[in-house]
Amino acid sequence: MIIHSLVKGMIIGLLGPEGTYSEKAAKLLNPEAGLMFFDDLEDVIGSVLSQEVDCGVVPIENSLEGSIGITMDALKEYDIYIIGEVIVPIRHCLLSKGHLEDITVIMSHSQGLAQCRKFIREHFRDVKIQTTGSTSHAAKLTSEFPGMAAIASRESAQKYGLDILADDIQDYKKNYTRFAVLGNNIPEPTGHDKTSIIIHLAHDRPGALYDLLGEFASRNINLTKIESRPSKMGLGDYLFYIDMEGHRSDRDISVALNNIEKIVDWVKIIGSYPSGTRKKVKN
Amino acid sequence: MIIHSLVKGMIIGLLGPEGTYSEKAAKLLNPEAGLMFFDDLEDVIGSVLSQEVDCGVVPIENSLEGSIGITMDALKEYDIYIIGEVIVPIRHCLLSKGHLEDITVIMSHSQGLAQCRKFIREHFRDVKIQTTGSTSHAAKLTSEFPGMAAIASRESAQKYGLDILADDIQDYKKNYTRFAVLGNNIPEPTGHDKTSIIIHLAHDRPGALYDLLGEFASRNINLTKIESRPSKMGLGDYLFYIDMEGHRSDRDISVALNNIEKIVDWVKIIGSYPSGTRKKVKN
Repeated sequence: MIIHSLVKGMIIGLLGPEGTYSEKAAKLLNPEAGLMFFDDLEDVIGSVLSQEVDCGVVPIENSLEGSIGITMDALKEYDIYIIGEVIVPIRHCLLSKGHLEDITVIMSHSQGLAQCRKFIREHFRDVKIQTTGSTSHAAKLTSEFPGMAAIASRESAQKYGLDILADDIQDYKKNYTRFAVLGNNIPEPTGHDKTSIIIHLAHDRPGALYDLLGEFASRNINLTKIESRPSKMGLGDYLFYIDMEGHRSDRDISVALNNIEKIVDWVKIIGSYPSGTRKKVKN
Repeated sequence: MIIHSLVKGMIIGLLGPEGTYSEKAAKLLNPEAGLMFFDDLEDVIGSVLSQEVDCGVVPIENSLEGSIGITMDALKEYDIYIIGEVIVPIRHCLLSKGHLEDITVIMSHSQGLAQCRKFIREHFRDVKIQTTGSTSHAAKLTSEFPGMAAIASRESAQKYGLDILADDIQDYKKNYTRFAVLGNNIPEPTGHDKTSIIIHLAHDRPGALYDLLGEFASRNINLTKIESRPSKMGLGDYLFYIDMEGHRSDRDISVALNNIEKIVDWVKIIGSYPSGTRKKVKN
């Protein structure tokens, strides 16, 4: 899972403080890299844009809650590319210095809270819910007050001296987060790559999505993901984020993308990068 | 926008307390209806299932943040249907009893917080962020402490005696929420209907989505929405939520849905209902 361009001495920007799932992803990517922690995802993305770091590692998609809006929006808005990906299993714990019956506040990142919605509703219907910049930030804050609990990783418990009051508390067992490695240049093909694009379809052009998918289907290009997201320009106006197997320099993909430019309003290639998984999905 | 089956004396279940955007939606739907407020969306949905109310009004999609997971999941899991829709413009205010410089906590529903992410980041980087069951619940809590502020509607300010410290604070001006009216039976055609379905595509069947869209395209059935959501069964496994113009009893739609059953793993009709808008979008 270590991608070719990543070498010893490199600096990875990521969400902090220590103990985040982003840290797990960064260590899977390159255990030798130096880590530069930031308070929020916007700052991680900024550090890639300003080249303060060699690359950034940010969550892009969770198997329960779907895409991470900030990352998806940044890929649309900035000159930044996905240059790799890492998949991390997510196993949330309820951490505290106090006892179960003393808890009056539960804190976590909004994603952690959403992934454990049923658990919170069932056991802590009347506690206050506080959103923090990261799961480990919640763990860090929790260590100051026994009435507080954090939803965070097992590693955060160790890091901040907290007890694990409950383990594996996400609402569904299969909980994975895909992290994107962000950089400023699209890497060369490796032979097992993926390409990601964003598309905005022309208004009032029925069948446009059908025609667009036809460009892939007719060339046997395997789509590993197709996702619609609000364009923020009004209800019913969507962007489509599409991932496919192959590098943008592959002949079939290159021809398909050229043809697609004529069908759609707007298309942006947001990355060609070594695939983190080999599993084939549908399109 | 008042749908035929809704009459005087009916009871609508919705998210409370008074002052929610759901209340605006319910009053647009039927100004004469009795309103029964619940603490969270799960309870509203439960009240429809148990027939404690005649129908429920719940947010289903926001133009900035996309779909409301709880509603989308409930439509998949329960025997419940969309029987109508209402679109409400969302204009968030920052409400408090105190002054701007005193604010140490900002509270709102997670959607309100997400829709004002940039505003909060720019002006209140170091305040605590607390999640509440609804925007008006945040307003109600805020009225007790001058150091707190809520992100909620203008109506909530009046309702809970708060000052409007800032108006129109959502990150993008075009902010709309589509509310679904939930009921236990699919209404008869009115001549200007929409039909909503959920589809799970078979695994390892490349081109399945293309074939599926072909069933609609070949019959000139206009899709007003196509959205993928995680199936919660693993990364890369999606459900597709598709809205189309027409009633499920229309011949073209009925044939298309029959053919689609043969292509996909699983399909569920989650409603045929009078359209809240007439605007044609693309597919």
